[in-house]
Amino acid sequence: MAHPLIAQLTLEEKASLVSGAAFWNTRAVDRLGIPSIVLTDGPHGVRMQAEGADHLGINNSHPATAFPTAASLGSTWDPELLQQVGQALGVESRNLNVDVLLGPGVNIKRSPLCGRNFEYFSEDPLLAGELGAAWVTGVQSVGVGASLKHYAANNQETDRMRISSEVDERTLREIYFPAFERTVQKSQPATVMCSYNRINGVFASQNRWLLTDVLRGEWGFQGYVVSDWGAVADPVAAVAAGLDLEMPSSGERGPQAIVDAVRNGTLEESLLDVAVSNVLTTHDRLKAAQAATEAVAGDHHALARRAAAAGAVLLTNEDNLLPLDSADGGQILVVGEFARTPRYQGAGSSHINPTQLDDALAAITASTQRAVTFEPGFAFDGSDEENLRSAAVEAARQAEVVVAFLGLPDAEESEGFDRTHIDLPANQLRLLAALRETNAKIVVVLSNGAVVDLGEVTQAASAVLEMWLGGQASGSAAADVLFGTVEPEGRLAETIPLTLSDTPAFVNWPGNQGKVHYGERIYVGYRWYDTTRREVAFPFGHGLGYTTFEYTDATVTVADASVAAAVVEVTVTNQGTRTGTDVVQVYVGDPVAGVDRPQHELRAFAKVRLNPGESQRVRLELGERAFAYWSKAGWLVEPGEYTVEIGASSRDIRATRSITLDVPVSTPDLDKESTFEEWLAHPQGTDVLEKFLTDLGPAGAMFRDPEARKLLGSMPMRSLVSFSGYTDIDGTINGLLTGVNKAN
Amino acid sequence: MAHPLIAQLTLEEKASLVSGAAFWNTRAVDRLGIPSIVLTDGPHGVRMQAEGADHLGINNSHPATAFPTAASLGSTWDPELLQQVGQALGVESRNLNVDVLLGPGVNIKRSPLCGRNFEYFSEDPLLAGELGAAWVTGVQSVGVGASLKHYAANNQETDRMRISSEVDERTLREIYFPAFERTVQKSQPATVMCSYNRINGVFASQNRWLLTDVLRGEWGFQGYVVSDWGAVADPVAAVAAGLDLEMPSSGERGPQAIVDAVRNGTLEESLLDVAVSNVLTTHDRLKAAQAATEAVAGDHHALARRAAAAGAVLLTNEDNLLPLDSADGGQILVVGEFARTPRYQGAGSSHINPTQLDDALAAITASTQRAVTFEPGFAFDGSDEENLRSAAVEAARQAEVVVAFLGLPDAEESEGFDRTHIDLPANQLRLLAALRETNAKIVVVLSNGAVVDLGEVTQAASAVLEMWLGGQASGSAAADVLFGTVEPEGRLAETIPLTLSDTPAFVNWPGNQGKVHYGERIYVGYRWYDTTRREVAFPFGHGLGYTTFEYTDATVTVADASVAAAVVEVTVTNQGTRTGTDVVQVYVGDPVAGVDRPQHELRAFAKVRLNPGESQRVRLELGERAFAYWSKAGWLVEPGEYTVEIGASSRDIRATRSITLDVPVSTPDLDKESTFEEWLAHPQGTDVLEKFLTDLGPAGAMFRDPEARKLLGSMPMRSLVSFSGYTDIDGTINGLLTGVNKAN
Repeated sequence: MAHPLIAQLTLEEKASLVSGAAFWNTRAVDRLGIPSIVLTDGPHGVRMQAEGADHLGINNSHPATAFPTAASLGSTWDPELLQQVGQALGVESRNLNVDVLLGPGVNIKRSPLCGRNFEYFSEDPLLAGELGAAWVTGVQSVGVGASLKHYAANNQETDRMRISSEVDERTLREIYFPAFERTVQKSQPATVMCSYNRINGVFASQNRWLLTDVLRGEWGFQGYVVSDWGAVADPVAAVAAGLDLEMPSSGERGPQAIVDAVRNGTLEESLLDVAVSNVLTTHDRLKAAQAATEAVAGDHHALARRAAAAGAVLLTNEDNLLPLDSADGGQILVVGEFARTPRYQGAGSSHINPTQLDDALAAITASTQRAVTFEPGFAFDGSDEENLRSAAVEAARQAEVVVAFLGLPDAEESEGFDRTHIDLPANQLRLLAALRETNAKIVVVLSNGAVVDLGEVTQAASAVLEMWLGGQASGSAAADVLFGTVEPEGRLAETIPLTLSDTPAFVNWPGNQGKVHYGERIYVGYRWYDTTRREVAFPFGHGLGYTTFEYTDATVTVADASVAAAVVEVTVTNQGTRTGTDVVQVYVGDPVAGVDRPQHELRAFAKVRLNPGESQRVRLELGERAFAYWSKAGWLVEPGEYTVEIGASSRDIRATRSITLDVPVSTPDLDKESTFEEWLAHPQGTDVLEKFLTDLGPAGAMFRDPEARKLLGSMPMRSLVSFSGYTDIDGTINGLLTGVNKAN
Repeated sequence: MAHPLIAQLTLEEKASLVSGAAFWNTRAVDRLGIPSIVLTDGPHGVRMQAEGADHLGINNSHPATAFPTAASLGSTWDPELLQQVGQALGVESRNLNVDVLLGPGVNIKRSPLCGRNFEYFSEDPLLAGELGAAWVTGVQSVGVGASLKHYAANNQETDRMRISSEVDERTLREIYFPAFERTVQKSQPATVMCSYNRINGVFASQNRWLLTDVLRGEWGFQGYVVSDWGAVADPVAAVAAGLDLEMPSSGERGPQAIVDAVRNGTLEESLLDVAVSNVLTTHDRLKAAQAATEAVAGDHHALARRAAAAGAVLLTNEDNLLPLDSADGGQILVVGEFARTPRYQGAGSSHINPTQLDDALAAITASTQRAVTFEPGFAFDGSDEENLRSAAVEAARQAEVVVAFLGLPDAEESEGFDRTHIDLPANQLRLLAALRETNAKIVVVLSNGAVVDLGEVTQAASAVLEMWLGGQASGSAAADVLFGTVEPEGRLAETIPLTLSDTPAFVNWPGNQGKVHYGERIYVGYRWYDTTRREVAFPFGHGLGYTTFEYTDATVTVADASVAAAVVEVTVTNQGTRTGTDVVQVYVGDPVAGVDRPQHELRAFAKVRLNPGESQRVRLELGERAFAYWSKAGWLVEPGEYTVEIGASSRDIRATRSITLDVPVSTPDLDKESTFEEWLAHPQGTDVLEKFLTDLGPAGAMFRDPEARKLLGSMPMRSLVSFSGYTDIDGTINGLLTGVNKAN
């Protein structure tokens, strides 16, 4: 639908509207009342740059709440909470006059090495999509537009602005697209941000199939597509592909190129009109929504604190060492520079100037009546290692329990580059080993944006609490969890592998010479580990609480077997003495299929909060897509048996049910490339073929031999007819096909 | 070079010469004295069909020596022996009036599941190429042409006549091409057979890049390309691509289509002339060589027996249980139907009607003065399991040692279909477990064409001897090895994995919907297991003998570091009391490279035979390709450090040396897509860039920050200039590039 002002805009004005005015805003057309719109970085806070900031848009931003990063929010498995965080971000955006907040990032964590994993939710597209949609709904509830990014197949930082992700369509459709698709369809983000990379050779910013056919044509996207900052290589090709707004400004270069292209006929003006309409219509909608809503700030720091605890994953907790008693007990030794100098956010475009910053040491000290001492144990830069370590070990002798804050220093992970290993710094591991020799009661609290090798950590520590990069209230949230003021609610949104060489993309990471092959295809995350039966350190979906839950009376009901849908119900009971939350996970497997499929895939989940002894009947719905795979002909559900697993992680399956779907089977048409086997499997083909073989005489009899059938089954009819001595091959096959069609 | 008769042939005659006359022969042109030529199946024997055989060319062939299959010959690591076998095959071909023998198969064993693995040599392209070349040299030494097959990327049977192998060029060049390339360059086979499958969407039979540009243009192939039987989908496209001969006959269909295409201008007649010339010139050469050589048959059964022992791999031999004493000792119980009903060859086109057939039971009985008893233990069809097993167990009580012949029955592996698992039949494993409870001294002798899961076998047996499908003398060869008349000389030409899910292609096998993705790329076989550090059952190159060898004084000499070449020398000493053979293996690794590379790759090997106490200084040469990888610009050797490992398997490395090559480095030219990092790494680019940053002022200073450099390093210059506020981006970059070129 063309925007009403299109007809009044000059070609030059239209070309100017599809390219930014400066780093963070679009161009206005004052004579028509078209305003300049402000877009700015998220997604974990509003990074509104102050006046006089650098050209690159990196430093000096207004204070804003630094919410937990997506790595932490992803671990909450809690769309409702994400919506609250989104709304708070929307309110802060409004109050800083930001119209579009750049987020959420729903790219799939293909490898733990990706430098930007902290900005992404999960290795699983359903989880990423549900969380992304909730976040967008929250942000947009107050009239601020979200920008769903980075679309698509952008799963690494290495050579990110040039590399071509070489990935087959099924993998895109099943793994790398669904989080975008789900977010678009559930929450209609105002904008989608195209990624820097190429996909099978074509820049995302110039990929019409991606930006127009799939995004708008198939998914029904109604907003506009904005480039990642600097992603446009050719402004004319971008407009032609369906890229609506180039950011940041390319000065007069982009607009002039577009004007020239329209004038000389290489770009249809109607394509430019579409882009301008998309931009203006979306901005109109945002302004209207802003006028219709109020942006009332709540206690965002408290929300950030609650969210950080909700994303905290308790990986191990031997002998229920946690929660610590806040009232009674011996000295608590807090070790680790991270306890007083929190690492709570990642580096790059998501870097926030926080409104306040809680450190864990202060929060712990404030939370307990027990004596608390502190030793840094190590320095981020590795300096003075031995002195710092021996002081910590000395202190550990006096302590009843040691709480060690370990993690990845800032320099180890960031937007812009990928890690080359998943190890914690060696000085921290040496400290931990030394502490362990002195004191057997060790709690490790981790600050890191992407998974690390925990082999030595789990060996040394009795309890391991993964806080990720938990935002500005991460320190106080850690104290909340350590003393049990709140539960650690997190579940892993990504598998923690035993070692880097076990990871699915290991031999295909990060590519080189301009290409990265997604050779593991759909086998990403637990789909890889579970299908190839690799041991892992901690499986996808894993996370302990301070109580335990029992699953009983699991049922899977198929109302109508001719429709691909089922309802899962299970009774969850809190067996412990504390209120707690649990995440019920439903995985579906298709043991016999026309294509290779993962062992099982997450198809539904639900978070429940239960008081001690309380039970709840949890109901989860499985729709068509829960059973479908992407075939050459599109999404396809095959008739037959499916397994439905209900569990607390991908490897803690509590109940398995088998269902049978009698959905219609579509028989592909036979043609001369169809094989002997395919003819035999075809309802009409088999009779026609048998008659043909009878007519053939001895050579035909040969095809009746079961061993020969195994040997020759994959022979296309053209070869079979040729081998049988026929010279008019096309005529012979056409005759057979006529027989098939007649019988139809 | 046009054949002299080209000018005298009519168009119709030329078209008839590029399509077979019948199933096994080409068309003659009597008026010009052009003979009909006979091609027939190999590669393990001459399968010359008798008169009146079936149309499909499967049954009823003249007797011929059934040599060990390629799985067995591959395990010999012995090019000299392969040449002898090749020559014997050539002689038998001559004596059956066969002009071209269809073999060898040098396809790479990508997965143990491939139904045709028994026809292929190895998972390693160097080994496959060396053996293929030797075999061709032998066959062709008596004027019989070989047919190097199946070119290319044909590594499975599933949907083999239609499927597209989706594989990147580097993987083709480093893994799937080199065995073809080496065989062509070392031995010039008379013909190359194109495979059935598509490669990246294009049928091999219609793939001009494959058949002409690479095969002839780059490798210098001088013979003709014949289609696999029935591989031609479009005869005109095939001729245009460089397919010289369609087999079998398509009657008048192919010739007529070609005539029509030339007449209507869709096929250039010169392309047809090339095909005809290739065919006629090659046939002239073969007839001349036949006239110049004599085909004198030796004792081919004895050769087959020697070769089977040379390919026998002794996997384990606890307490030196083998060799058995043939003179003294208690009763020997031979168990297993395979002992009296040998499985010695595979099914499909390579199936031979043997001249004689040795069974192991008779050979064992004849080889020893000890009492030998026999129990079948199981039936191939699984029938009567309990009775057969209990009889065997009962007999085992009386025996001093049990020799159990296990393996895969015929129905389990064949051309035409792939296996779906790597298990031995369950009834055999149950038998083995029961035997083990009764008698602790168990030798297992295996008959199978591709690797099987040996977990239960190695647990139960003290010695495991892998005979593969060892040809018609396999039974007597097994007896030779068991009693130590000869050594088991074999070394694994393929890794034996612990379990199927550990194999490199596991998640990408066998593809579906028309495509199979070679997602593991170059990480095939030990390149996968060793790079990803997976445990294996038995590594590539492993094999025990009846003596042991010491490696001393390993040296690696680089004569001129500016040339990529080295000489490896090592002294090998037979430390035992028996004569034996050893295979010295040289692996090269490139720990720091511009692309991902396998942990190490086999780059040279040598088989040595030494008397007890004897030493030999073994010398192996490494040329340019031993260090090279396939880059966008072709084969590339980077300067820097390489590791050279000398070992007895890929995981039994006895000595490691590091060498440094100072070969010239080629700096890629800078352009506007070059990144910030690439400018900094460029000898002239760095100065020009630094001056530019100085001119930029504060924004430029920002780029000097080491953290910012990490973040922005992958930014192409077009984006960097745009971000820096320049609007004339092309002009600015061109100015910088002028500066670079000036400084050059």
